[in-house]
Amino acid sequence: MTNLSIVGKPVLRPDAFEKVVGGKGFPVNIRLPGMLHGKLLRSPYPHAKVLKIDTSRAEKLPGVKAVLTHENVPQIPYNPINHIPPDSVTIFRDMLVLSDRVRFAGQPVAAVAATTAAIAEQALTLIDVEYEELPAVFDPEEAMKDGAPEIHEGVRNNIRDTPFYVQGDIEQGFEEADYIFENTYETPRVHTCYMEPRVCVADTDANGRLTVHASVQHLFGLRERLAWVLGIPVGRIKIVQPPYIGGGFGSKIELAYLEPLSALLSLKTKKPVRVEHTRYEDFICNARHPMKIHLKTGVKKDGTFVARYASTLVDTSAYSSHGPSVILVHAYFGLIRGYRSPNIKWEGTVVHTNNMPGGAYRGYGAPQACFAVESQIDEICDKLGLDRIEFRLKNSWRKGDPHPEYPQWKLNSYALDECLKQGAERFGWANRAKPGSGSGSGTKRRGVGMAAHPLWVSGCLGGPDIMELSGAIVKFNIDGTANLSTATMDIGSGQTTTLCQIAAEELGLPFDAVQMAHGSTDNLPFDSPTHASRVTYSSGNAVKAAAAAAKKRLLEVAAIVMEANAEDLEVKDGKVLVKGVPARAVPVADIVRRAESPWMVISDKGPVPTPFEEKGTIIGTSSMPPQANASPAVAEFVEVEVDTETGQVQVLRVVYAHDLGRVVNPVGAQGQVEGGLAQGIGYALCEEMQFDPDTGACLTSDFLDYKIPTAVEMPRSIESIFIESNEITGPFGAKSLSEACLIVPAPAIANAIYDAVGVRINNLPITPQKILAALGTL
Amino acid sequence: MTNLSIVGKPVLRPDAFEKVVGGKGFPVNIRLPGMLHGKLLRSPYPHAKVLKIDTSRAEKLPGVKAVLTHENVPQIPYNPINHIPPDSVTIFRDMLVLSDRVRFAGQPVAAVAATTAAIAEQALTLIDVEYEELPAVFDPEEAMKDGAPEIHEGVRNNIRDTPFYVQGDIEQGFEEADYIFENTYETPRVHTCYMEPRVCVADTDANGRLTVHASVQHLFGLRERLAWVLGIPVGRIKIVQPPYIGGGFGSKIELAYLEPLSALLSLKTKKPVRVEHTRYEDFICNARHPMKIHLKTGVKKDGTFVARYASTLVDTSAYSSHGPSVILVHAYFGLIRGYRSPNIKWEGTVVHTNNMPGGAYRGYGAPQACFAVESQIDEICDKLGLDRIEFRLKNSWRKGDPHPEYPQWKLNSYALDECLKQGAERFGWANRAKPGSGSGSGTKRRGVGMAAHPLWVSGCLGGPDIMELSGAIVKFNIDGTANLSTATMDIGSGQTTTLCQIAAEELGLPFDAVQMAHGSTDNLPFDSPTHASRVTYSSGNAVKAAAAAAKKRLLEVAAIVMEANAEDLEVKDGKVLVKGVPARAVPVADIVRRAESPWMVISDKGPVPTPFEEKGTIIGTSSMPPQANASPAVAEFVEVEVDTETGQVQVLRVVYAHDLGRVVNPVGAQGQVEGGLAQGIGYALCEEMQFDPDTGACLTSDFLDYKIPTAVEMPRSIESIFIESNEITGPFGAKSLSEACLIVPAPAIANAIYDAVGVRINNLPITPQKILAALGTL
Repeated sequence: MTNLSIVGKPVLRPDAFEKVVGGKGFPVNIRLPGMLHGKLLRSPYPHAKVLKIDTSRAEKLPGVKAVLTHENVPQIPYNPINHIPPDSVTIFRDMLVLSDRVRFAGQPVAAVAATTAAIAEQALTLIDVEYEELPAVFDPEEAMKDGAPEIHEGVRNNIRDTPFYVQGDIEQGFEEADYIFENTYETPRVHTCYMEPRVCVADTDANGRLTVHASVQHLFGLRERLAWVLGIPVGRIKIVQPPYIGGGFGSKIELAYLEPLSALLSLKTKKPVRVEHTRYEDFICNARHPMKIHLKTGVKKDGTFVARYASTLVDTSAYSSHGPSVILVHAYFGLIRGYRSPNIKWEGTVVHTNNMPGGAYRGYGAPQACFAVESQIDEICDKLGLDRIEFRLKNSWRKGDPHPEYPQWKLNSYALDECLKQGAERFGWANRAKPGSGSGSGTKRRGVGMAAHPLWVSGCLGGPDIMELSGAIVKFNIDGTANLSTATMDIGSGQTTTLCQIAAEELGLPFDAVQMAHGSTDNLPFDSPTHASRVTYSSGNAVKAAAAAAKKRLLEVAAIVMEANAEDLEVKDGKVLVKGVPARAVPVADIVRRAESPWMVISDKGPVPTPFEEKGTIIGTSSMPPQANASPAVAEFVEVEVDTETGQVQVLRVVYAHDLGRVVNPVGAQGQVEGGLAQGIGYALCEEMQFDPDTGACLTSDFLDYKIPTAVEMPRSIESIFIESNEITGPFGAKSLSEACLIVPAPAIANAIYDAVGVRINNLPITPQKILAALGTL
Repeated sequence: MTNLSIVGKPVLRPDAFEKVVGGKGFPVNIRLPGMLHGKLLRSPYPHAKVLKIDTSRAEKLPGVKAVLTHENVPQIPYNPINHIPPDSVTIFRDMLVLSDRVRFAGQPVAAVAATTAAIAEQALTLIDVEYEELPAVFDPEEAMKDGAPEIHEGVRNNIRDTPFYVQGDIEQGFEEADYIFENTYETPRVHTCYMEPRVCVADTDANGRLTVHASVQHLFGLRERLAWVLGIPVGRIKIVQPPYIGGGFGSKIELAYLEPLSALLSLKTKKPVRVEHTRYEDFICNARHPMKIHLKTGVKKDGTFVARYASTLVDTSAYSSHGPSVILVHAYFGLIRGYRSPNIKWEGTVVHTNNMPGGAYRGYGAPQACFAVESQIDEICDKLGLDRIEFRLKNSWRKGDPHPEYPQWKLNSYALDECLKQGAERFGWANRAKPGSGSGSGTKRRGVGMAAHPLWVSGCLGGPDIMELSGAIVKFNIDGTANLSTATMDIGSGQTTTLCQIAAEELGLPFDAVQMAHGSTDNLPFDSPTHASRVTYSSGNAVKAAAAAAKKRLLEVAAIVMEANAEDLEVKDGKVLVKGVPARAVPVADIVRRAESPWMVISDKGPVPTPFEEKGTIIGTSSMPPQANASPAVAEFVEVEVDTETGQVQVLRVVYAHDLGRVVNPVGAQGQVEGGLAQGIGYALCEEMQFDPDTGACLTSDFLDYKIPTAVEMPRSIESIFIESNEITGPFGAKSLSEACLIVPAPAIANAIYDAVGVRINNLPITPQKILAALGTL
């Protein structure tokens, strides 16, 4: 890998300008001729029956073209998450696109399409809904109690699912333990805070086929789920790939109400119909699930784990949605698999409440788990007087181990040990003061903390039973450039820049000679969502394979043109070279032009048909599953300053060490780290959605009321160490990065706060109020 | 081929409704957010220098965003026809996108983009152009005389090109002849009369990359020529494939001024810019070249051709454009190659005038040639007392002969003989009265006539030195349907319906399980223009190959799933079958879902990664040149009634016999015949563009002043005999049809008029005035 000329070099994103200005190419900027505007009427009640819904006044309003209610839309139960599983997989389908039963405040009960958004808005006020209010419950523990309101018929005590896992003998494990630690951790409901609102423009052709533009993270998932909800085959739907998506962070994986409703309004009117979420609608669309985690760990004196029991209560909210699957990823890839332990037991409880729906958010259950596990390790180390680095090294997996979840696969590359060692060295961890003693003067107390995330689904899998696919098409142009098509979405993290680098490296072209070609579900190979940190690894492999196929064909033609053996040829910097004979270089453009030229060869006797063998567009395709679950690893070290007078916490310095296999774009990788850190700091210190305790109405539905970190809250110093462990199944050795960056900050910061002021707060976010309360100064 | 289940069956075009109503999907209906409207200022003079052009008043008009003149656009000479040739091919590049020299009335001298079309229109009136008028010449014979105005510097006597062809010894040939026939034929300038105006919407992204929507017949040609004219690499331009084009007939192959000007206006403003032609602008955009053909033929008494001399004068008009190539196709595939002759000489003259540009129009020089050749054969037969069928059979090529133009290839299928015989029998040709005597009573005289077109480039080649390419991508969906992508444009003739049939037949799916997936030059394999009757044969072969590749992969996966050998499997009516074991049928959808499912196999022990071999989107691609020049053949028989009082001609009955290899869609084929006939009747009887003799201004620039046949002028009876000669290199035996339908009517009708009233009119169109003049009654 020493010969890489593009992978590993910092490149600027070609889409940078459009991304920054929110220019052309974002779905929110799509307008179609004759387009109607749709608006959704939402229930003010968190739990109610719709007894009667009268749309006649709304329908009479001039400009109104269609009104939908539960009475005239398909009543097909569905689950909005990314994949429709095969029959062998259980999935809870408890949503309807419009229903006569409302289970959270803000659930749509009707939809209107009108010639202008203002008319549609006005029409909503003319829809008369007669509700029967039902008692609501917002606390999951209350919801499980006998006598709590029944949210879904037949779901006893509102408990939707109770997954569990057992390995070894947990009782015996605890008996063997020298120490047992038992803690409860709580995490809040937080919003992903993407910039581009959810929007959908659906259009219908004369044959009733749908074309859909939407701000989503998964083209094929949207197609599949829309087809399910509308009750039509997938072939009747085309999802157009937009060049840009203004952020997603997981929220835009699932189907929201607006996509099927746009489609239904369009099917009814035969016009394009656009529905755009207000920021309020975005906030109540979905959020990271709040969890309550009970973690009981048995360790030997030397720090070896011998028994780990955990239970997780997840508020899956009004509908099942991601709840039953997020809890599995949370458990397997967050709570119980990260470190070795011979005896494990885990019990999950997925509970319905009348809260707004939970959804996917980067980390998918891991941030909650990591906060618990890594906070508790801090306590264990203190108690046992063990070094935090040594402790983790003792219990962690090693390169070459069978993958703990998929023993068919190995941990081909795995360098948590290096992350811990190099991170600690760079941070100066060895020089820290006695844990918990802090430093600084007066009311400004400083402390350091660390956390690791040892194992992740990242790189290839969206869940324990999912084996995702990626595909790509690479096509040469006659100017010697190449186009890369893949249904992988760039949701803001620079995925397509990375993929263009991988393609350029494989093709032997300069970076700027490869550009994205956008398509649709009609003509792109299937791709799994842009989620689970999987793009660099999975899509990267598919892109590399498609590029290799295109290059193979290029060299076949070049062999004819250059009268050489294809095996003796290589492509470098846009030229085809005979290996070892630098003088015989032919520009790639010349070969492609020869192959794609529709002209005959002009001989002395006039035009002669060109040999069949050398003609044709040079194109390569791929579509493939991952070949391993190549897990990244991360260790993070932070220094914070806590103001004991105000309770305010400022993160001063951060050192990250990531095993990401191979850095593809150093600039992009650092961007990932910094973006993830911001989300992690928000999760640790300030983000939490608030609701009216009576009505369940969301009180934090804009960026004034919902506080996310800004430049002011970010640390001055963010250092990254990228450890290139060279994953042999990855593209040029790469694995992934992404979510690892935001999973670790919360426990690292919590541990640093403890280090600074000696109080442990196991309940996120660690607000000034909580700190002051813990310090007894409130 | 007896097993075909879809090819050969009549199917209704899935796009019928949208086509008829001009609905969504036509480029003319595209609107983009923030779009500006462009208008072109056109010269009122046919020949002038632009001395000064002052745009300052226009630029100051509120709403005007850009004004272009020759002073601020690239001055790159170009030829607008379909392909940029390799350096070994001569092409005359004598156009500029905006120039300081005007050579025809209506040539653009400036372009404006403004916020509304009305403002752009108004801005045109505020551009002050100072012209120096130059003497103009409109008659090509006048233009060749010494002292005629010099239209292009250095082009002596305005003669741009003088191609010629010699075979055998023409002098000796004429010496051996028993009879020599010598005639001159003249054909008019006619417009293609597509319905959708030319339109272009060009947009520019933040990196200056262009995205272009246009009503054209060739995506890749537009990309290539735009790149040339703008002086940028092709990779900087994306041409979007529209679902529909509202007619083209050849006109929309070439680059018109509006496409580069839209692009330049967009590059300047960074906004989408839309330019739509008025009907007047469409009329003066291009037209079929008028020709004057001198044809001298030596025959033996028995009717054998021994010598054929021909000369053709083509008015290539103000610019070279198609002139130098249309004359070659005209000569090789119309005049001199259609029938066998040992001695041939042909001389062409391509002359500039100050007329509006000539362009491509179905038949590309062949209608002019066929009118001459087939009219003269009528005279020869009369003189020699030979039967017209026997005469043609004697001189025609036969199946198995080497292709007269490409001896590397054979006429694998060639059934002109059957066309002549079966057509004559159906028409009752043997029962006709004595030639020239007519029938009927009083002033309504009836006559019959016939013509053939023995050889055509159709099926694969756009010109003698062009070897075109087609490509396709076929992708299965999880509902068992398949998407077909190809850059082939359906310009109204039902091409994509035919291609979907071919794909469905090869895939083993029902017809309605295959649908078009539209893309762009970014992600589609190269395709040559939709022209030269080439789609069924060339694109059809590419589609069949891509479908075969996809089916191969489908059966590989099916073999794993069904535990069978792929070779033992076949696909029929949407199911995979084990040959000979009807019970073992698995729906295609199940196989595709298995391949594309992102879920692991759920085993007793939990989820297990699915075997790599069976995963991935099922997709097949192709890109290939033709393997032969599979020429269709046609004979047409007509009966007309001539009103000797008014000179009016009504076509009463038509019988066509076509060797088209294989009928793919009988309904579509009949539609082709009827559409072609209408164009042929117009060419024969009424169509001719008229110009002001002083200013060169077009006087026939709408459908009131320019007369095309309507239902009233069409015959009551149009019969088609499709002879299925089974072309072995064609998809399921198919060749092509298209242009053959409109090449033959003019001579057949002229011959029938002669038969009815005894006068030969060798100058199209045969208007009532000309008939009355010939009858001496005017």
